[in-house]
Amino acid sequence: MSERFTVLKKEGSAKRGRFETVHGTIETPVFMNVGTVAAIKGAVSTEDLERIGTQVQLSNTYHLHVRPGDEKIKALGGLHKFMSWNKPILTDSGGFQVFSLASLRKIKEEGVTFSSHIDGRKIFMGPEESMRIQSNLASTIAMAFDECPNSKAERKYVEESVQRTTRWLERCKKEMQRLNSLDDTINNEQLLFGINQGAIFPDIRIEHAKIISDMDLPGYAIGGLAVGESHEEMYEIIEKTVPYLPSNKPVYLMGVGTPVNILEAVERGVDFFDCVYPSRNARHAHLYTSFGKINLMNAKYELDDSPIEEGCKCPTCQRYSRAYLRHLLKAKEMLGMRLCVLHNLYFYNNLMTEIRNALDEGRFSAFKADMISKMSGEEY
Amino acid sequence: MSERFTVLKKEGSAKRGRFETVHGTIETPVFMNVGTVAAIKGAVSTEDLERIGTQVQLSNTYHLHVRPGDEKIKALGGLHKFMSWNKPILTDSGGFQVFSLASLRKIKEEGVTFSSHIDGRKIFMGPEESMRIQSNLASTIAMAFDECPNSKAERKYVEESVQRTTRWLERCKKEMQRLNSLDDTINNEQLLFGINQGAIFPDIRIEHAKIISDMDLPGYAIGGLAVGESHEEMYEIIEKTVPYLPSNKPVYLMGVGTPVNILEAVERGVDFFDCVYPSRNARHAHLYTSFGKINLMNAKYELDDSPIEEGCKCPTCQRYSRAYLRHLLKAKEMLGMRLCVLHNLYFYNNLMTEIRNALDEGRFSAFKADMISKMSGEEY
Repeated sequence: MSERFTVLKKEGSAKRGRFETVHGTIETPVFMNVGTVAAIKGAVSTEDLERIGTQVQLSNTYHLHVRPGDEKIKALGGLHKFMSWNKPILTDSGGFQVFSLASLRKIKEEGVTFSSHIDGRKIFMGPEESMRIQSNLASTIAMAFDECPNSKAERKYVEESVQRTTRWLERCKKEMQRLNSLDDTINNEQLLFGINQGAIFPDIRIEHAKIISDMDLPGYAIGGLAVGESHEEMYEIIEKTVPYLPSNKPVYLMGVGTPVNILEAVERGVDFFDCVYPSRNARHAHLYTSFGKINLMNAKYELDDSPIEEGCKCPTCQRYSRAYLRHLLKAKEMLGMRLCVLHNLYFYNNLMTEIRNALDEGRFSAFKADMISKMSGEEY
Repeated sequence: MSERFTVLKKEGSAKRGRFETVHGTIETPVFMNVGTVAAIKGAVSTEDLERIGTQVQLSNTYHLHVRPGDEKIKALGGLHKFMSWNKPILTDSGGFQVFSLASLRKIKEEGVTFSSHIDGRKIFMGPEESMRIQSNLASTIAMAFDECPNSKAERKYVEESVQRTTRWLERCKKEMQRLNSLDDTINNEQLLFGINQGAIFPDIRIEHAKIISDMDLPGYAIGGLAVGESHEEMYEIIEKTVPYLPSNKPVYLMGVGTPVNILEAVERGVDFFDCVYPSRNARHAHLYTSFGKINLMNAKYELDDSPIEEGCKCPTCQRYSRAYLRHLLKAKEMLGMRLCVLHNLYFYNNLMTEIRNALDEGRFSAFKADMISKMSGEEY
């Protein structure tokens, strides 16, 4: 199955691709919608996701391990059955949450000991534990267990951390192969993506990219970006690293980002994205349009009976006005959040559709320039 | 239009009816779904309501007057356009909220002065103000502005209060006629329902019912019940009052109640209902089934992959398990509340459909006995 990723077309480094999985085909570039605890925040159901063109849902290994527990989800038939979603699901490794959310953590060669953010209970997680949890969840794509060093970390720390991440990746690969061969594994074709780290040191990133590329995994991610560095530093790292990852495998830029970030990263060869921005911004009344973001709390929308964006095909714009949404948000009615999350996720999903169309038609470069220029306009 | 209510069939005092409005036909008995501030609590959209068989939405005059303001809703084309709902809407008069939510109220013959629960601002509301607000909202059915005396109030207080409510009803009727005749009124066919009061004094209730019946309004409500009296007292008041309301007009029992309350009241001739129970209970994990209420927080549902009720046709039961819903509620994910509210509202709407079918087929009495016996079972 080494041809599971097909590059259909290229424009510079930008790729229009297709990724085949046991849970269906992913057209790339793709934006994955983040459902942290097996649900998109904002009362968005899986039916809603089907209506807004979501291709892949992303769920969090750490959160689901802590509650309700991955073994319970396995007993219930895995994450797809649990949340009633039959398209691809990517689970992160839990590493990022262990390093950002959990308290009192201790990193050793074996893995990390930390306290649950829910009840303080001690938990140990290493590469094997992360793979077992993800195997229990039975996601389509599992992410390697890595350490995400602080973007301001010293060179020496980053070097040692990346070496450990490489050793952890070897253990992840071995454990995933073992788990996929077991009879009672729900998804025996679970795919492991490796993660490139190295903070903002290009030479460490490149060296690491070369080493993990040799491990012949079905996909690779660039982790540890969008954690405090500037956009320019991020673009530079992407530009320098992508050429050292396999050209016949998808590249996933973790946790990124704004529409402009995505356009810039697609141009540099990135295929998969995920980010909490669209849902988080929606819950704070910040809505994406092709003319830039608008803040619905602005008084000028109080009597505005137009949709968030004229011509938008999302379920919210088909039916509800800015004035109504603003009223719901001000009254703290949950419906307001839900309708705004639906719009923003649709905006991101649709942006990816437009990017793919532009790539198909060989006009991505012009599309990108046009979108960036339009989106930097004044609030309208 | 005095034949706007048609009694299609009777079984004892129970009526199977049909009520025609400018916003469509209401099949009765009917349960109205409560959308306090122009939205059902729990992120339920108007599309969702269409899917769960909602015939009438109920919105709150007091809440919408305070925020966003009825004049703004009028400027936006009225409540139907504002919340994108083209079926009937009933608005309450604001009276109940003024007497229960607002603070520092002063009752005079003209009306009530009170402080907004949002910002403390002084507001005056009397019969004319209530009619103007409801005319601005342009609901299908407007409710008369009344006083709802405490169920424990002294006889003397109740007598005087009911006399004032009668005088207020005359003023409501006059003002509604004037408003309906204006050119810039959105809904010139807005209907006014009178409200019967009298706490739990049958003779005051009956006397009041006779007086307001003479005013020839398109419908009548029984107000001031389910506010602290026993179920038996409530049933007795309904049984004694309904015969003195016009038999060719619908009877609306305000704010009631449990499924059993509804069955008992239908038997005594009630046609319209509303209650916050199904949505409020859903938000607290209490779910209705035809075998009684279940509490999803119960540990025994942790690994239960069956729907809330086997065979239920609601969008939630079509797709999600008790285990998943329980997980969402425990994780405080808004989606959990939404899916549970959808189930409970569907349960109520479907109960009314089954009541209507039973009446159509002359087997209401048997249906009622069967439902009450099943619903009093143990949690399953």
